[in-house]
Amino acid sequence: MEEKTFKSKLIYKGKILSLRLDDVILPNGKTTTREIVEHPGAVAILPLIDKDKFLLVKQFRTPIRKTLLEIPAGKIEKGENIKECAKRELIEETGYKTDNLKKLASVYLAPGYSSEIIHIFLAKNLKKSIANPDDDEVIQNVTLERKEALNKIISGEINDSKTIIAVMLYFQLGKDSIS
Amino acid sequence: MEEKTFKSKLIYKGKILSLRLDDVILPNGKTTTREIVEHPGAVAILPLIDKDKFLLVKQFRTPIRKTLLEIPAGKIEKGENIKECAKRELIEETGYKTDNLKKLASVYLAPGYSSEIIHIFLAKNLKKSIANPDDDEVIQNVTLERKEALNKIISGEINDSKTIIAVMLYFQLGKDSIS
Repeated sequence: MEEKTFKSKLIYKGKILSLRLDDVILPNGKTTTREIVEHPGAVAILPLIDKDKFLLVKQFRTPIRKTLLEIPAGKIEKGENIKECAKRELIEETGYKTDNLKKLASVYLAPGYSSEIIHIFLAKNLKKSIANPDDDEVIQNVTLERKEALNKIISGEINDSKTIIAVMLYFQLGKDSIS
Repeated sequence: MEEKTFKSKLIYKGKILSLRLDDVILPNGKTTTREIVEHPGAVAILPLIDKDKFLLVKQFRTPIRKTLLEIPAGKIEKGENIKECAKRELIEETGYKTDNLKKLASVYLAPGYSSEIIHIFLAKNLKKSIANPDDDEVIQNVTLERKEALNKIISGEINDSKTIIAVMLYFQLGKDSIS
């Protein structure tokens, strides 16, 4: 089912993402142009605190002009190991550190146009450290009972994809192995 | 927590997405530039067939150069009602039609840089019609037992965000109201 790219044009190269246009030949012989957002990949962390609470973050998201309730996350730096990246983002955004990280999933967020993959971890045994958000990040910590997080997904109040996936996988896997 | 945009520059305007750079003032008084992908929004449909099977689609995704197993989905046309869009995409991609659509969730896929919201529906009472994919879509139908879909999420074989959310919400809500 593969497509063959016969021409690729870089439109924009930025700090978070790049945009390129690929001219491709489809398996049916037709040609088309794909608009592709290149992203270096990201990690997200579902932090479990006090045994029965999640630690989430509130953050204004410029593309949708809304403040969302999400799990901490951030992009992978060049050459960075994903587990180290998860530890770094957790401390930076929440002020908590841990060595207890378990991968929940690796997920493509919008594979129709974006190359981004996000690696989602469960973080346990959190210890208080010092938050150090990036200059352009204004973040507020929010603790939520586990069941409350699930209810906010069902009600639609939590509507960020990585956060929904992390919380629902936590509950699903918990039946077998996690809790 | 809101940011104020004081300058906005359109970099690229395409058929699926546009790219713009917004200069913003953060709540802490600092300024930064946000790279923003504008997307018109999309729908996705989890089609339930034969009472205990899902209908999924296999499709090559150029940005990641992989063939993914996903639920049918597509972008909203200008002025199109989301339920009509869901019916249209379901027929186009799978050849099945229905009037029985129930909203499962509306979700932001990558709110850090993309404005895309995706509206996810459960589709029941499917009737065979004629598939009519877009010229640039090469799509293959795949039926999966409901439990098998959940297992493929847990194993990582299904790794598309909207598909994971749709299937997991189906099982979660099914406990209360759906099935």
